[in-house]
Amino acid sequence: MALVTLLTDFGNSEPFVGVMKGVMLTRHPQLTLVDLSHGLPPQDIGAAAFWLAQSHGVFPAGSVHLCVVDPGVGTERRVLAARAGGHLFVTPDNGALSDVQRLHNEMEVRHWSIQSPGSLSATFHGRDVFAPLAAELAAGLPFESVGPMVTDWVRLPRQTPRQVGKVLHGVVEVVDHFGNLISNLDLSQDNEQPRVRAVRCANVEIAWGKTYSDVSVGELVALRNAWNRVEVAKRDGSAMETLGCGVGAALELEVE
Amino acid sequence: MALVTLLTDFGNSEPFVGVMKGVMLTRHPQLTLVDLSHGLPPQDIGAAAFWLAQSHGVFPAGSVHLCVVDPGVGTERRVLAARAGGHLFVTPDNGALSDVQRLHNEMEVRHWSIQSPGSLSATFHGRDVFAPLAAELAAGLPFESVGPMVTDWVRLPRQTPRQVGKVLHGVVEVVDHFGNLISNLDLSQDNEQPRVRAVRCANVEIAWGKTYSDVSVGELVALRNAWNRVEVAKRDGSAMETLGCGVGAALELEVE
Amino acid sequence: MALVTLLTDFGNSEPFVGVMKGVMLTRHPQLTLVDLSHGLPPQDIGAAAFWLAQSHGVFPAGSVHLCVVDPGVGTERRVLAARAGGHLFVTPDNGALSDVQRLHNEMEVRHWSIQSPGSLSATFHGRDVFAPLAAELAAGLPFESVGPMVTDWVRLPRQTPRQVGKVLHGVVEVVDHFGNLISNLDLSQDNEQPRVRAVRCANVEIAWGKTYSDVSVGELVALRNAWNRVEVAKRDGSAMETLGCGVGAALELEVE
Repeated sequence: MALVTLLTDFGNSEPFVGVMKGVMLTRHPQLTLVDLSHGLPPQDIGAAAFWLAQSHGVFPAGSVHLCVVDPGVGTERRVLAARAGGHLFVTPDNGALSDVQRLHNEMEVRHWSIQSPGSLSATFHGRDVFAPLAAELAAGLPFESVGPMVTDWVRLPRQTPRQVGKVLHGVVEVVDHFGNLISNLDLSQDNEQPRVRAVRCANVEIAWGKTYSDVSVGELVALRNAWNRVEVAKRDGSAMETLGCGVGAALELEVE
Repeated sequence: MALVTLLTDFGNSEPFVGVMKGVMLTRHPQLTLVDLSHGLPPQDIGAAAFWLAQSHGVFPAGSVHLCVVDPGVGTERRVLAARAGGHLFVTPDNGALSDVQRLHNEMEVRHWSIQSPGSLSATFHGRDVFAPLAAELAAGLPFESVGPMVTDWVRLPRQTPRQVGKVLHGVVEVVDHFGNLISNLDLSQDNEQPRVRAVRCANVEIAWGKTYSDVSVGELVALRNAWNRVEVAKRDGSAMETLGCGVGAALELEVE
Repeated sequence: MALVTLLTDFGNSEPFVGVMKGVMLTRHPQLTLVDLSHGLPPQDIGAAAFWLAQSHGVFPAGSVHLCVVDPGVGTERRVLAARAGGHLFVTPDNGALSDVQRLHNEMEVRHWSIQSPGSLSATFHGRDVFAPLAAELAAGLPFESVGPMVTDWVRLPRQTPRQVGKVLHGVVEVVDHFGNLISNLDLSQDNEQPRVRAVRCANVEIAWGKTYSDVSVGELVALRNAWNRVEVAKRDGSAMETLGCGVGAALELEVE
């Protein structure tokens, strides 16, 4: 019996998440359920895609990752299940799978054909569709039986970093709740710290460091974060507010 | 071994909820514990009653639902256990059972006579009284042994909708953290969408829709929500703020 | 297989806590994981130390308590495991163990020598160091094998109450998210309510009560809280804001 993780923008004020867990545990009481987060920025599919990709790998192979950020609930958007890197994913067809696919390159996506649309609510498919599907997959439903394969699932318009001479050109891909700016510059192939000459974000030169405490309180620092991304942070503050920029802002890394 | 859900207004800043779980797991390590929410508006018994009624049904029969919104902690208010619809409930005697009783019509309520009041704190009966009682019930304590039956437990002054000709007259019963206004107009008996001619809330005419995305960003919509209630929402905003009304506000649904 | 509790300042917006759980469950799928809180004030080691001491005792003996409030992540601060009162603790060496040690008097502390610093991130030792160590201890790793004993671990500069005649002189030790002021005056040795003549905090005389509802809405009350500490609260408000004071403020209890 596998494990299901839950990632949503439902917040922690009403029992929406608890209700999804009830649905799953009624079907399969032995499931292990783990919250990834329910505090994603409302309707922020980009943040969902990013954290889904960064998080799932620490869980046991065969885990099912349920991600419901669903501004299109009640419309005709499709219900997807996907398999990549030995993990399973269940999401609305809105781009949330984009970064998982970038990470693993190969991904198989299937479209769940809802048998009984009459019994669905129009506003809470997390309870009525996604939780039941995740529970069944975790309990052993063969992935192939979910439905037909699809290849035209929605991709987010993610940018690929460009290298021009000694300068890597990237963009901010997600902002965390501290206001840290996490870019698409990925250093996971470098076992050693890169020899950085300069970092620029929003036309401001940022000091390069190893950890947040390498600069004084209130100062900006660029570093390789825990996901091997280049990140711009303000110690005990918000880099987003200080720099006045967010997702999509240009970030340059000049190496020796 | 059954499951215990937890619903409180304790917030997520201090480990109050974790401590209640520790008390339960020390008594019965095999219990499954599921959070419904700990972000209810402080001391809002009406919200607790509403969400307790809407949530418990998705859990397995025999589950115990622990609901501690307890402004009267330390006073003589009673400790109750209740049984309805195949589920068990543990709450202070302050009205939190009202909506569960409305839902199931029949409910048996018992008053727990605390054996050792000397060992109680005056401010945290969640830890000292309610969690132990919930754990014991989940582990098999017979409901009848909780204590004597009571019939004079506290009811909230809930209003019943009235129908005058083609118009259903209801009130807002609870407001969620988005500012959505959830009324007492219950459409769960209607298998099909009602033919709505007009919805009025706070003397404003509201468009009827099927889902939140049926209107443009910033516009109001009335719909049948995931709990089959008539709800007034503002897309990407707060209907409560826009309409300047809240719990108790009148809501009218005119059908064809 | 034991239980692991988690206490951090990571917040609930990104899946940092979920990732730590994934690391632990991949190593030992049978672990029981319980959140104490992830909403501690950022980098507030004093709050972490306080709540770690107040909370762990309700869990089964042998539980492992993982506490990661880690402003020094990426620096040379040590990784500690400790044993006291039949419980195990895993924290950075920054003072978080102080109040557990005050509570139990005896505590054995060991320094975990990280085998492979090359594979560590610089910013997320919760995932890379603390979660794996907690999981292994919960799964049976002998405490003695963690590493060498240390006695020079970091202590917070906690104050001890002084008694001068009939007056107990204490200080505010922690402020909770309601703005309640929790002092270091500990009444746990008194089985009965103390006979209090007067309480003063920030040069303001505070009424003594048994519970929060002993005063009217908006008034201040001093009481023996659920942890047997003298606490100053404002009913339905913030004592911290009203009195304009916080951690370290003087508090006097005059008894008969």
